[in-house]
Amino acid sequence: MLSDEDRKLQNYLEDFLTPQRKNRLHSVLAQRTRYVCCVLEDLYDPRNGSAVLRHCDALGIQEIHAIENRNLFRSDENVDMGSAQWLDVKVYRRQKDAPLSVKARRRAIQRNETPQVPSQTPRVLSALKERGFRIVATSPHSQTDATPETLNLADGPVALVFGTEKHGISREAREAADVFLRIPMVGFVESFNLSASAAIVFHVLGRRLRNENLPWALEPEDAEALYFNWVRNAVPHGQALTRHFFQNTDLQQ
Amino acid sequence: MLSDEDRKLQNYLEDFLTPQRKNRLHSVLAQRTRYVCCVLEDLYDPRNGSAVLRHCDALGIQEIHAIENRNLFRSDENVDMGSAQWLDVKVYRRQKDAPLSVKARRRAIQRNETPQVPSQTPRVLSALKERGFRIVATSPHSQTDATPETLNLADGPVALVFGTEKHGISREAREAADVFLRIPMVGFVESFNLSASAAIVFHVLGRRLRNENLPWALEPEDAEALYFNWVRNAVPHGQALTRHFFQNTDLQQ
Repeated sequence: MLSDEDRKLQNYLEDFLTPQRKNRLHSVLAQRTRYVCCVLEDLYDPRNGSAVLRHCDALGIQEIHAIENRNLFRSDENVDMGSAQWLDVKVYRRQKDAPLSVKARRRAIQRNETPQVPSQTPRVLSALKERGFRIVATSPHSQTDATPETLNLADGPVALVFGTEKHGISREAREAADVFLRIPMVGFVESFNLSASAAIVFHVLGRRLRNENLPWALEPEDAEALYFNWVRNAVPHGQALTRHFFQNTDLQQ
Repeated sequence: MLSDEDRKLQNYLEDFLTPQRKNRLHSVLAQRTRYVCCVLEDLYDPRNGSAVLRHCDALGIQEIHAIENRNLFRSDENVDMGSAQWLDVKVYRRQKDAPLSVKARRRAIQRNETPQVPSQTPRVLSALKERGFRIVATSPHSQTDATPETLNLADGPVALVFGTEKHGISREAREAADVFLRIPMVGFVESFNLSASAAIVFHVLGRRLRNENLPWALEPEDAEALYFNWVRNAVPHGQALTRHFFQNTDLQQ
């Protein structure tokens, strides 16, 4: 529940939005879901992360978890078209306190091994499991697997894990997976690029959520809090107006 | 029908392929379709064209028509993963004999108009219509329109037209369209990028072709000719072996 103060702030800020704009926020909000969420593991091309954020926005997927193991997660606003600001993008920053020593790195390279970086994937996926998500690893190479059309959605929310462009999902992600998901392909190439995979998967799952009458909509409290954030974001100069609101006690009556 | 000579050449070249490789050619061939074809109108980013070629291969779409009006169509092998070689990609080259005069171009710019380049779109789409295709223009902004899930496929083959990244399909393409197709979106962004649109559309249509028992498979003669091309393409040093075949009459017995 919003506090009284937040509700007053929201009312104040809403006056700076046109009715059309408010309607737009409400209509997009009504289509948002957390029943399906998106996990991006260690992408290295900012364009790919951005493209996936854009698909998530377009298809109503509110929650994105971006895990940095080796690579930094960045989004390019020219590609995501500003959609990141409307999404819950949680970035798990690369751990700075556990770097590889120069010696360990050199030893690994001499042995022709890839230097090991501590993976954050297990703890991120465990936390999602504790929240009730089934972990769905997308991989073109798995054998016993579901497709976007056959994945069981009735059993509860799902977290779709997409891996790096070149190597796909990590061993840790495979070990944590409850289900493997594959997009059926009939050509010579054996994979889609990341952005295309995500677009297909979220398009198909989004339609299925609605057709199969699953409880995909946001909880009222969740929707209320998100709307409050969106209003603060949508109002031009929202931060300055918020300061103004708190400096003028008569506005808070 | 292949000529006797071609059939002998095919037999000769097939000996250089492993059974696995031949099986692969046959299994991919069995999933190819021309019931749905892809028209790319005046793309400017080679990565986009390449990504779409890769999706077409992966999803069994054999025929791509790339129209150059202002921009040259190029494919980047790092992105298309070599899939262009297995597809029928017809490029309608920008007309060099009908360039704009410097004077006409300057006049247009002074009037704040975009200099007109003769569009090849009408003749390409007319030719496809004559072959029996319905022209399906993909556009996020059309009102009365089909979605990938509702587009009528039973009425015959369809040519999906995708426009430039920034401006979408041209006026000429809109005028030639029999149907408009829109991918349902529920977020703040109002379009998908080209590669994602094509991936979603071809994935959904490909599954529907198969589920709705439409006559999507290639005609036997078409499949035979395509297989012959693929064999020549798949054999290492295929061109040199072909020359060797024609130089040695005993191989042609």
